[in-house]
Amino acid sequence: MKVARFLVEGEISYGVLDEAESAPGVEGGRDDGVEIVELTGDPMVSGYDTTGRRFPLGDVRLLAPVIPRSKIVCVGKNYADHVEEMRGETGGEVPAEPLLFLKPNTSVIGPGDRIVRPEISERVEHEGELAMIIGAIAKNVPEEDALKYVFGFTCANDVTARDLQIADGQWARAKGFDTFCPLGPVIETDPDLSDARITTRVNGELRQDGRTSQLIFSLARIVAHASQAFTLLPGDVILTGTPAGVGRLEAGDEVEVSIEGVGTLVNRVV
Amino acid sequence: MKVARFLVEGEISYGVLDEAESAPGVEGGRDDGVEIVELTGDPMVSGYDTTGRRFPLGDVRLLAPVIPRSKIVCVGKNYADHVEEMRGETGGEVPAEPLLFLKPNTSVIGPGDRIVRPEISERVEHEGELAMIIGAIAKNVPEEDALKYVFGFTCANDVTARDLQIADGQWARAKGFDTFCPLGPVIETDPDLSDARITTRVNGELRQDGRTSQLIFSLARIVAHASQAFTLLPGDVILTGTPAGVGRLEAGDEVEVSIEGVGTLVNRVV
Repeated sequence: MKVARFLVEGEISYGVLDEAESAPGVEGGRDDGVEIVELTGDPMVSGYDTTGRRFPLGDVRLLAPVIPRSKIVCVGKNYADHVEEMRGETGGEVPAEPLLFLKPNTSVIGPGDRIVRPEISERVEHEGELAMIIGAIAKNVPEEDALKYVFGFTCANDVTARDLQIADGQWARAKGFDTFCPLGPVIETDPDLSDARITTRVNGELRQDGRTSQLIFSLARIVAHASQAFTLLPGDVILTGTPAGVGRLEAGDEVEVSIEGVGTLVNRVV
Repeated sequence: MKVARFLVEGEISYGVLDEAESAPGVEGGRDDGVEIVELTGDPMVSGYDTTGRRFPLGDVRLLAPVIPRSKIVCVGKNYADHVEEMRGETGGEVPAEPLLFLKPNTSVIGPGDRIVRPEISERVEHEGELAMIIGAIAKNVPEEDALKYVFGFTCANDVTARDLQIADGQWARAKGFDTFCPLGPVIETDPDLSDARITTRVNGELRQDGRTSQLIFSLARIVAHASQAFTLLPGDVILTGTPAGVGRLEAGDEVEVSIEGVGTLVNRVV
């Protein structure tokens, strides 16, 4: 199932994507596309009751599928080829356990929103990543149960001011600027992530090309590890690391993070 | 003015502290203490309208004066003597600009709440700090205006699993465990912080003893710097760094952070 958060008629709602009703004359129906079935509330909190309204996907504006009320937990150095490419810049060791850092919820933007390069950075880079959305309170969960606490998955871009990351040593500022956490376009609740391809393209050119089977620490291990430190709350987001090929974003660039079975997230840089 | 968040009769309210009404027969009046005047809502959002109810301070349970909806921004290495004592462990350079990191809101506890030492750390330490509570949306604010965006000040303890901080390199996990951000007891809206003494005691023994006049980066500079990266939201908290004397906390310890003109925050360790 694909869950979306969207703006229509000035209101923010949640919905699930569905094949358009093809019968002519059905209100809002289009026989060539996808519709959003509006839900009465946040499905992570209030389930899948519907309001009875449907909208053609093209008639709504998709928003970031979640704004975490608590935290965005990120995993650094979780693809071996990316660890290797960063050896001279932020350190090149594969960590013994998942290396965690945080991004603030004020950094979240949605599909189609603009990534704003801050004036104080000369080097803003993309990091395409798979994101997990937590669906239930998780504290000290064992690895074998950990994925039960995940509501679904979406695409993320862990945008990074690389020069400030290197200068600060701590990564919170360099990765925490407003607009530095694009999420979306929707939450896929049950994708096959055993070996899904994850790519990042800039202006159509392939920059990053990895597979989820290359993750050093598994998705379940990451959730278990993070829950050992922090109570994870519904709506919290976990970014799972980026494969090799990170690189610069310039004003005017269009950056696209695509994950097989999950979706494609496109943002323009200004 | 002292602003509190408190639990009484099963409900959480905000209030302001006031001298007890001394006239005999006045409801709730005590001639020897302080009362809380209940507010209709969060004063950062809805001002200082009162409900008409007053409670003796001893009859309510004070809670963390704020739970940030967005972030706790922290400044590392902001007292020269603390930078010196950490030289061999987390690096000994005084940074050129405030070094920022984040703690999650799930780490916040209130006065009297217990600090829980996680099983996976052998070395949990106190760091007494002055905390600023943001009162208005702040983005790219100049230093000369920055303190206008601060609603008030409280005491904080930036509890740290020192062994994990050193092992991880990134500080988010080591400083982000549940219960690792005691805040309180109240928000003082207008203290004199030009040269306020800040102390941390463990079981009554003086461990940290600094003055706000020793801050490397001023309070205004910190707000301006943080607002350059993150949009600061009402209720966001900024921890301003700790003076020398950080040290271990063991089970059963009582740790007390006291700031002249602001208050005294006491927590027990389990």
